[in-house]
Amino acid sequence: MWGGRFAEGPSAIMREINASIPFDKALWRQDIRASKAHVAMLGAQGIVSAEDVTAITGGLDAVAAEYEANGVPENWDLEDIHMVTEDRLTQLIGAPAGRLHTARSRNDQVATDFKLWVRDALDQTDAGLAALQRALVTRADEHAGSIMPGFTHLQTAQPVTLGHHLMAYYEMFRRDRSRLLDARARMNECPLGSAALAGTGFPIDRQATCDALDFDRPTDNSLDAVSDRDFALDYLQAASQIALHLSRLAEELVLWASQPFGFVRLPDTLSTGSSIMPQKKNPDAAELVRGHAGRVTGCLMSLMMTMKGLPLAYSKDMQDDKPPVFEAHGLLALSIAASEGMIAGATFRTDRMRGAAEQGYATATDLADWLVREGDIPFREAHHITGAAVKLAESRGIALDGLTIDELKAIDSRIDERVYKALSVDSSVAARASHGGTAPTQVRLRVADARRALGMPETGIGED
Amino acid sequence: MWGGRFAEGPSAIMREINASIPFDKALWRQDIRASKAHVAMLGAQGIVSAEDVTAITGGLDAVAAEYEANGVPENWDLEDIHMVTEDRLTQLIGAPAGRLHTARSRNDQVATDFKLWVRDALDQTDAGLAALQRALVTRADEHAGSIMPGFTHLQTAQPVTLGHHLMAYYEMFRRDRSRLLDARARMNECPLGSAALAGTGFPIDRQATCDALDFDRPTDNSLDAVSDRDFALDYLQAASQIALHLSRLAEELVLWASQPFGFVRLPDTLSTGSSIMPQKKNPDAAELVRGHAGRVTGCLMSLMMTMKGLPLAYSKDMQDDKPPVFEAHGLLALSIAASEGMIAGATFRTDRMRGAAEQGYATATDLADWLVREGDIPFREAHHITGAAVKLAESRGIALDGLTIDELKAIDSRIDERVYKALSVDSSVAARASHGGTAPTQVRLRVADARRALGMPETGIGED
Amino acid sequence: MWGGRFAEGPSAIMREINASIPFDKALWRQDIRASKAHVAMLGAQGIVSAEDVTAITGGLDAVAAEYEANGVPENWDLEDIHMVTEDRLTQLIGAPAGRLHTARSRNDQVATDFKLWVRDALDQTDAGLAALQRALVTRADEHAGSIMPGFTHLQTAQPVTLGHHLMAYYEMFRRDRSRLLDARARMNECPLGSAALAGTGFPIDRQATCDALDFDRPTDNSLDAVSDRDFALDYLQAASQIALHLSRLAEELVLWASQPFGFVRLPDTLSTGSSIMPQKKNPDAAELVRGHAGRVTGCLMSLMMTMKGLPLAYSKDMQDDKPPVFEAHGLLALSIAASEGMIAGATFRTDRMRGAAEQGYATATDLADWLVREGDIPFREAHHITGAAVKLAESRGIALDGLTIDELKAIDSRIDERVYKALSVDSSVAARASHGGTAPTQVRLRVADARRALGMPETGIGED
Amino acid sequence: MWGGRFAEGPSAIMREINASIPFDKALWRQDIRASKAHVAMLGAQGIVSAEDVTAITGGLDAVAAEYEANGVPENWDLEDIHMVTEDRLTQLIGAPAGRLHTARSRNDQVATDFKLWVRDALDQTDAGLAALQRALVTRADEHAGSIMPGFTHLQTAQPVTLGHHLMAYYEMFRRDRSRLLDARARMNECPLGSAALAGTGFPIDRQATCDALDFDRPTDNSLDAVSDRDFALDYLQAASQIALHLSRLAEELVLWASQPFGFVRLPDTLSTGSSIMPQKKNPDAAELVRGHAGRVTGCLMSLMMTMKGLPLAYSKDMQDDKPPVFEAHGLLALSIAASEGMIAGATFRTDRMRGAAEQGYATATDLADWLVREGDIPFREAHHITGAAVKLAESRGIALDGLTIDELKAIDSRIDERVYKALSVDSSVAARASHGGTAPTQVRLRVADARRALGMPETGIGED
Repeated sequence: MWGGRFAEGPSAIMREINASIPFDKALWRQDIRASKAHVAMLGAQGIVSAEDVTAITGGLDAVAAEYEANGVPENWDLEDIHMVTEDRLTQLIGAPAGRLHTARSRNDQVATDFKLWVRDALDQTDAGLAALQRALVTRADEHAGSIMPGFTHLQTAQPVTLGHHLMAYYEMFRRDRSRLLDARARMNECPLGSAALAGTGFPIDRQATCDALDFDRPTDNSLDAVSDRDFALDYLQAASQIALHLSRLAEELVLWASQPFGFVRLPDTLSTGSSIMPQKKNPDAAELVRGHAGRVTGCLMSLMMTMKGLPLAYSKDMQDDKPPVFEAHGLLALSIAASEGMIAGATFRTDRMRGAAEQGYATATDLADWLVREGDIPFREAHHITGAAVKLAESRGIALDGLTIDELKAIDSRIDERVYKALSVDSSVAARASHGGTAPTQVRLRVADARRALGMPETGIGED
Repeated sequence: MWGGRFAEGPSAIMREINASIPFDKALWRQDIRASKAHVAMLGAQGIVSAEDVTAITGGLDAVAAEYEANGVPENWDLEDIHMVTEDRLTQLIGAPAGRLHTARSRNDQVATDFKLWVRDALDQTDAGLAALQRALVTRADEHAGSIMPGFTHLQTAQPVTLGHHLMAYYEMFRRDRSRLLDARARMNECPLGSAALAGTGFPIDRQATCDALDFDRPTDNSLDAVSDRDFALDYLQAASQIALHLSRLAEELVLWASQPFGFVRLPDTLSTGSSIMPQKKNPDAAELVRGHAGRVTGCLMSLMMTMKGLPLAYSKDMQDDKPPVFEAHGLLALSIAASEGMIAGATFRTDRMRGAAEQGYATATDLADWLVREGDIPFREAHHITGAAVKLAESRGIALDGLTIDELKAIDSRIDERVYKALSVDSSVAARASHGGTAPTQVRLRVADARRALGMPETGIGED
Repeated sequence: MWGGRFAEGPSAIMREINASIPFDKALWRQDIRASKAHVAMLGAQGIVSAEDVTAITGGLDAVAAEYEANGVPENWDLEDIHMVTEDRLTQLIGAPAGRLHTARSRNDQVATDFKLWVRDALDQTDAGLAALQRALVTRADEHAGSIMPGFTHLQTAQPVTLGHHLMAYYEMFRRDRSRLLDARARMNECPLGSAALAGTGFPIDRQATCDALDFDRPTDNSLDAVSDRDFALDYLQAASQIALHLSRLAEELVLWASQPFGFVRLPDTLSTGSSIMPQKKNPDAAELVRGHAGRVTGCLMSLMMTMKGLPLAYSKDMQDDKPPVFEAHGLLALSIAASEGMIAGATFRTDRMRGAAEQGYATATDLADWLVREGDIPFREAHHITGAAVKLAESRGIALDGLTIDELKAIDSRIDERVYKALSVDSSVAARASHGGTAPTQVRLRVADARRALGMPETGIGED
Repeated sequence: MWGGRFAEGPSAIMREINASIPFDKALWRQDIRASKAHVAMLGAQGIVSAEDVTAITGGLDAVAAEYEANGVPENWDLEDIHMVTEDRLTQLIGAPAGRLHTARSRNDQVATDFKLWVRDALDQTDAGLAALQRALVTRADEHAGSIMPGFTHLQTAQPVTLGHHLMAYYEMFRRDRSRLLDARARMNECPLGSAALAGTGFPIDRQATCDALDFDRPTDNSLDAVSDRDFALDYLQAASQIALHLSRLAEELVLWASQPFGFVRLPDTLSTGSSIMPQKKNPDAAELVRGHAGRVTGCLMSLMMTMKGLPLAYSKDMQDDKPPVFEAHGLLALSIAASEGMIAGATFRTDRMRGAAEQGYATATDLADWLVREGDIPFREAHHITGAAVKLAESRGIALDGLTIDELKAIDSRIDERVYKALSVDSSVAARASHGGTAPTQVRLRVADARRALGMPETGIGED
């Protein structure tokens, strides 16, 4: 395929290191689609005859049908999906096949194919996250009033509601979806027609192929168009952020499923047992989601390193762009689906959550806030008074509201009986009704907003 | 500051590992600004008296004036910029200082301060890139018709124009600026009022602080608001892409400045010499820009790893968010400025560029394209014919247009005299006038577009 | 310092991006030491006169005394520690200072200085890990018989001893120390005398400077010697592995300190409180150790990226080698010290650990093993029988040994009364006395070995 | 396989995310070998009857023969290679198969299998590097006296020999091989018998399985043994360093093969052409080696991130250890082989190298050194004088030795006719005969040392 200039063919090592067909065959649908758009344009511009266009288009359809039925043959001698397809086309239709590559190069061809693939991956990821958000919102709706300990530093901090906690992840994935959307808008420029690096002298119509492939506009610089892998990095960066969010959720599910926490039972369908310990029910799906975050991020690292310091235009290093993107996408799709399954199928043990919230002096801040509000004491002073109360209760091994009013008054005389109302987890949670706060009223409003944004039916719950 | 609950103070190791004041003092302007917005809101809501608001606001202004004049004192016992400032405020105004921390926590405070800082960093980076783009466009304008070899695989591929090459970088930085813009829009939600993790029971007005700090809206979930460092990752991801683009430009400048290429003389002001080799003029600025890409990317890696698998809400690990962001921003700002200086000040040796383009059989594709157009030969066949011509010329050590018409006809009889016109670098470049191609006419149109987008005056050059 | 070849001095940007003195001043002791070794050798070889050697040596001592007293001045015009020192030397002793740089270049000078620094860092890290190992062994000794639940997948798996658990970390740090030792041996070759890149024509004695600086041998290739930063990468790789081990220990301490686990009370001296929640005692030191793992690994990533694809010999990109190494070393030293403090000062709540071990069917494997041993049942079948017993006990909410013998016999008739002995956590732990197993006898033997390896006095405990 | 405790089987998502058989089937040889060692030991210890041992051993051999002939079946329901093999064994030999898993768990089984695989990978990598070193040494021997420009900052610095340049890479790979050796020694401890996490109560003989599998000693702590993936990280770290060295060599080959350099013709067998530009001969193999460095390093990053913060003992995240190691090993093996092929097959264009060395004032340092030696001028002053000479020559567009003696004397009167001898590239190179310097005599000595170290026959060349 390289013309008559080479004295010797490639060595065995070269065939193996050079062949991208083992992985770029994943692009076959995109390659066929882009070739059909290209040849249609060549026909419309009179660069290729109508007859040849018909032959080539029919041939490409035939090749596609073969691939669909039998898969793509991995012929290392033909290097990549582009040559494998063109070779088969030549076998099927003969000489006219040689006109398909007019006014294009593999450099703009692969950029176009890969962009089409990444665009699909962005769309699929967005759909997966939307499903995960729906699962989160559904469970948050159900648990808008379920009380659990809120942690900071993994120490019991203040009571929160489980619905509020789940909606925190809704927010993360909302931002992630905006990342996907931004990446899609930015990458949706068509490189086809940039040819090898400099554009072409043939009178092509770039807007036509751009439109046929649903791009927003043709790229403006041919050197950039064949050298650019920003779109793959944008995908991997968004994927990394998503994977990090999933890793946090997974970490919590692993923690919550542990015996000491006991906050959740994960569905049997997403758990495994042990080959040696018969009692085990392991949160494997959550652990794998957490572990996959490492691999997705490694894929990003890989491509950033590969692109560093490459001069323009296309260099063969850039062939190493696809394996990390393909790998990350596969891992991410599974991770999102597994997370959705875990959230949808989890049995939250709300009794144990509530029990844990009632321990650990989680309402100490409420005592301090009460002192500020009712006693007009500066917050810093109220914080000190409360610290003394906690210390006393802790030394006695009791809860804050186990202290008598006399004991409390001995610490600070401005405390009176009304304080006990502030010390229950229910009133603590209900009080935090500032915008975005954990109060069930707030959570229900946020759930209602989210349901609207996701196109889910209203439940009437968030209306109170 | 932690109340009366601890029996023992921190150890020396703890003071050192825990203190963030050595780096988070960089947030002092943001911290003062956010505190003033917070206390104004507390006053407006009647949570703090007008008198105390006045005292606190005046005190904060006094602290700011001290910092401006003398820097921020690094008192490790006070841990961080928030406590250092509150401590100094207390010294200056006494008891009312204790009311400032009402209805907030360091968790929402630091999220707010850091977001304000990152937002400024995004804006500064955008301004830096705009200046770099202007330098690129100015030089591209000047060199829209200067011919150089276009490379793929660092092999001479086809002639291009220097203006076209420079405009490829304009495109990269255009995408980068859209990344910054997207990141800014996504992060511009105000966390202040989320308190420790659960919101607050005080009747605060989150919209008021949000407006005062120029955020678009308050965050919707307090747990997320204090756990979220997406905005820092978004910044580092955009910074990494920018650094990668700069590393490619730097690589080219290093290559071009080498004796074998000799395409550019970098300005003395951005070069250095050698302590031992008196003849050396080293492209240090370009090398450092290229090297910095490693460090900027390392900063991204650092924060991704740190955030992986953290349960909600705030964990102290997240204190490790600032050093990589601060470091990356410093390195990036210098890299952008140095790149602008190199582009603006470079002496392009267009004679050597043109000379190199005339070697290496750069117009071989033009011969193939001519055969397709004039001989109606399928491209693949034309490619083979051209390969034979190149092989013959190479074996004789001459250029393609050094072959006689008889020699060319001997290779393929369909070739005639008109072919020589296609084989000059000027006609090769002029021919590639497809949208985004390297033809000077195309480059001038793109430059004109870019000048408009950048608000630069029209030159009239791109009108032909 | 670059001779008379430059028309213009560096721009402000260049001064800032180029100056390494803000960080490489950390090398001053190494720079002085290496310069003294170099000039002594120049004197011994007759390249510099004895008089000049005396003047230079005395001058270097004077400069060192100034640095010790007042720090290193950060003069950006002089770029780096080498020029700052030579400049000051020239001020102090005049013309002879110009002879110090004979037969060397900054390229071999900085490689030598930085190697000396990294070698010290390796030694300091090793000493820190040895101290941490001693703390682990001491606590393991104390808790060789303390029972806790062993987890896999963070699910209760089998009872283990706390001593065994702590000794797992002893093993990790043992391997880490061997990494440090290997790195030290590999890097201990002296680059001084490699000059700029090609060696020198002066009749130097490389063995002499090598010996004076305690290197094992001179480097064998001057191009490699000035291009090599493997030693810095070896350090960062070992540091990353150490940081990962520390991050696992830190994760466990954070988990164990949480209210649901309640396995440990960390020392007040390594904990912090909350500015808003008076009851909090946060495991900040552990969280920071865990977070620092991200930054240490980011430093490794940074330097790997920077070195990728650099042609020989020295390139200025390599100036970006020092900040990540310096940063990683500081973070690691603190992390090791904080971990030692936490282990030495932790109060292990062995009652809660034992309680947790007695729940969760941790001895189910013991039932299966008993069936294999006593009933000669294939393990896979025994595993199934035990699964049924766990299911029954779980449905009743009781422990395995809460099942009556009739209930057990109903599951499998080969079970008899003797089985109850196998079901206690004490007998479970005692039984696992295979080499490296969790039985207290095994733990004590391993502790005794470790004490010997660490040069700690024998306790007699491991002798039974 | 998890006993009777689960109500529901795994979901489709779970089967896919959980199954490791698609990649861990690569471990089948190791798994069979370790199982045979285990059952032989169980037999010797009387834990399993001789008859069952015979049945199991024969069955394992039969399974191995099937795998060898037909590959390993990818049954996702059976999760991994361990269960696939045990399942097939059960089909072949029935009940006794159930005794194979006595006194072990998948946790120690997979640690053992994977260690055996990594140990082989270390050995294979070492053999590959030795072959690459032989190629380097052979070409260095041939070109010990071939002169080329030595670069720093990619600027012509001083003349060096090609042999010296190639031997720099010999040194890098020498260090890399010591990394592999160190990693091998450190990891060569046998985890088999550590069981799930706590050791076992069966009277196993760990030394026996250790010896049978060629490990140096059994691991000392069962919790560590099943939690440890240091050996995989050690492999990936060594692989990353190797890949970085290969990336530097590849960068140079790409540069040298470019038209402006023209220092090398790479073998046709390791080059490719262009689908559109018939004249192209692209250094694809070198570019792919350079690109692969990104992916190998990404693999390291991946596993470091995955392991960060995992509590003991085994967590399922650790299943993500194998894909990056397998991927890195495949990429590295190809990269090493391709590099060997390029070095062995390269045609070095020594005429162009020498020509380049004679330009660019590469001998300016020799002039400065001559002034120091012959004129007893301090180096700093000599450096300034030489700078003036270079400036004059450059302004005239001539080489240093094109300046007349009068012109030189006008710059500094201490210069005389003898100086011209110092200014030729041959005398420059010959002069740098310090240990490790570029003088052909030095290079030949180093080549002779290397040939001895590699067990290559002596050439007699290095004896002069």
